[in-house]
Amino acid sequence: MIKPDEALRIILEEVKIQPIKEVNLMDSLGYVLAEDVFSDINIPPFNNSAMDGFAVIASDTVGASNNFPCKLKVLGDLAAGNVSDIEIVSGSTLKIMTGAPVPQGADSVIKKEDTTLSGEEVSIYCEAKKGGNIRLAGEDIAEGERVFTISTPLRPQEIGLLASLGKSKVKIFKPPRVAILSTGDELVEIDKPLSPGKIRNSNTYSLTAQVILSGAKPIPLEIARDNMDSTRKLIQKGLEVSDILLTTGGVSMGDYDVVKDVLDDLDAELKFWKVAQKPGMPLAFWCFGEKIIFGLPGNPVSTMICFDEYVRPAISKMMGRKHIFRPEVDAVFEHDLKKKPGRTFFVRVKVRTENGKYYVSLTGPQGSGILKSMSLANGIAIIPAEKTLVKTGDEVNVHLIDLPEDH
Amino acid sequence: MIKPDEALRIILEEVKIQPIKEVNLMDSLGYVLAEDVFSDINIPPFNNSAMDGFAVIASDTVGASNNFPCKLKVLGDLAAGNVSDIEIVSGSTLKIMTGAPVPQGADSVIKKEDTTLSGEEVSIYCEAKKGGNIRLAGEDIAEGERVFTISTPLRPQEIGLLASLGKSKVKIFKPPRVAILSTGDELVEIDKPLSPGKIRNSNTYSLTAQVILSGAKPIPLEIARDNMDSTRKLIQKGLEVSDILLTTGGVSMGDYDVVKDVLDDLDAELKFWKVAQKPGMPLAFWCFGEKIIFGLPGNPVSTMICFDEYVRPAISKMMGRKHIFRPEVDAVFEHDLKKKPGRTFFVRVKVRTENGKYYVSLTGPQGSGILKSMSLANGIAIIPAEKTLVKTGDEVNVHLIDLPEDH
Repeated sequence: MIKPDEALRIILEEVKIQPIKEVNLMDSLGYVLAEDVFSDINIPPFNNSAMDGFAVIASDTVGASNNFPCKLKVLGDLAAGNVSDIEIVSGSTLKIMTGAPVPQGADSVIKKEDTTLSGEEVSIYCEAKKGGNIRLAGEDIAEGERVFTISTPLRPQEIGLLASLGKSKVKIFKPPRVAILSTGDELVEIDKPLSPGKIRNSNTYSLTAQVILSGAKPIPLEIARDNMDSTRKLIQKGLEVSDILLTTGGVSMGDYDVVKDVLDDLDAELKFWKVAQKPGMPLAFWCFGEKIIFGLPGNPVSTMICFDEYVRPAISKMMGRKHIFRPEVDAVFEHDLKKKPGRTFFVRVKVRTENGKYYVSLTGPQGSGILKSMSLANGIAIIPAEKTLVKTGDEVNVHLIDLPEDH
Repeated sequence: MIKPDEALRIILEEVKIQPIKEVNLMDSLGYVLAEDVFSDINIPPFNNSAMDGFAVIASDTVGASNNFPCKLKVLGDLAAGNVSDIEIVSGSTLKIMTGAPVPQGADSVIKKEDTTLSGEEVSIYCEAKKGGNIRLAGEDIAEGERVFTISTPLRPQEIGLLASLGKSKVKIFKPPRVAILSTGDELVEIDKPLSPGKIRNSNTYSLTAQVILSGAKPIPLEIARDNMDSTRKLIQKGLEVSDILLTTGGVSMGDYDVVKDVLDDLDAELKFWKVAQKPGMPLAFWCFGEKIIFGLPGNPVSTMICFDEYVRPAISKMMGRKHIFRPEVDAVFEHDLKKKPGRTFFVRVKVRTENGKYYVSLTGPQGSGILKSMSLANGIAIIPAEKTLVKTGDEVNVHLIDLPEDH
């Protein structure tokens, strides 16, 4: 039996970053860049007006005020998207719209609200500041600048910036395909009636959802039955179509736990079996050529927690992310909790904040079949193996699944 | 010019919760429930073994130890998914696998590791505790229990729990369709070359990404040109296919800002125009029958911030969410910032934590065209209208766009 840290170290050592794939810009949302991005243009591309108003030579307007407006001849009218070949000389101006290129000769823009136009003459009621209301070419991004480095997460603001650079295609790390195989003679599909001794197959659903949120591509398989033939057939199918295979159940001490036997037969390389933790003790991990296989325990809570603590970081690493773990906080524990030494406890907690401090309370009974304890949780508190008692007021480390709602 | 709070109040008063739609369980991830969910079964459905081992009568094992094992006759073998009609009587036991129903007569399970099996006899080396290693029917969820209330967000754990209840279909609030219309003669598509005076259409991309992350359905339209015909045609098309229309640009003081004129012509009801804020002052909002229209300013940063502060909460309300705003924190400002009174500033900041406190620093120049300031940001600091100076060390309110990376 190895420790959770050691299990995670072995997994992360084995997983490799995915190959690179070019996708349409809009399809890159949520992934990270697999390339450095340089700009081949200035942004904005040219000096342009930040206001609707008049392009002027600032020195023409010295002394202008409400009582003593400066009067300039309007040479024309320039809308955004157009270019003017008119040059502004002393005594003249050009009407200009937001975003239009500043014409030659002008060095500032007076906003419309500070003027009145009468025929071909405009009265200006304030002094222009040299450079005022002009956005300079390259003030956001200069030509040749490295705008993003590899591994930058692509959020709406990065998508917008890449669009303005004209990057209609971007390179990302290909999301891994994750096959999901629930095993057990007791499982029935969720839309089928329950007969005696049977339960519904919930793990395929919770895992598929977890895979989707991790950014990878889920491939749910049909249920494998507790015999070598059914399990072998579906494990082989899963390995054919995926980069990662997740199995649930079939890795305990039971006579019908055939996942291990099938993978032995297939010469998969068992990297570890059993981790000193609760829930999730029977967790197993294999390598099979370039593919990796997680043998998740069958209990609904164990499955979800093992995914979150082990599979999710592995997927994040494969996808090129820099931050592969859940955000961590120290929080005040609001119960007394006794345990035997030897195993790390992953305890489902409700996290709340008060005066900038985090507090956590248990989400009820912590049995590894009790999915309600996961549903009420927004965090996993980590109780170290050697601890035998956590007291009300003690600080514990918490992995945040979601932001606290009162945050 | 109205205040940001007032603008938000008007918007939220106008938006209605979307109609209900039934979807496959797996397609409900990320939405919220549009119904209360009750369980029509116990979970687990029957008393079952939490271990691989032997189902016994606890009183049979009194005094059992390593030196003095208790010996019981093994009547059979029960795997998960099966039911046994054997009744356990004193002196007998049934071999049982995790998840299998506890047979009649037995009141506890001894785990395999504490036994040795020899032919039809098993030696048991410890005392059983009545009820030990048995998961009771209904211990997670009782038949008839209300498991979820309306508006519960559907995360992997809720999906898993709904699967175990056999809810293959669930009711959600239909995600609104959001048409996105960028306007401007200066805009070119992102895969086209830039000619003089032109810039690329980035707003359609950043907004589409923001709409996707809000959970709604984006419908990006082609670029509208700065004339009544082109703008009217595309606004009408947008209104036909959407619940919400977003326009960018065309709502300022310029001669070519035709969005307002077109919507006047169409008899859309203008609820407000201009909000005392920076960036995003020209924001406009209309109602048009059951549909709503946001006139977002054309500057890339103004567009994104107006989406985040006004459109996103409106979408969240329409989708039935209880928590419609970004998480808020108080943070220590790490600059001196001077401003004129009168407008609320939405300042792009990088949020970090240190010793449980939040700190924010500006992401560089805050011009409303400078998209880099958004890309470096994970929060928006709100500087109240009346403030003229924020000093290093002052506390400011921050809307968190993302969790701080060091969190």
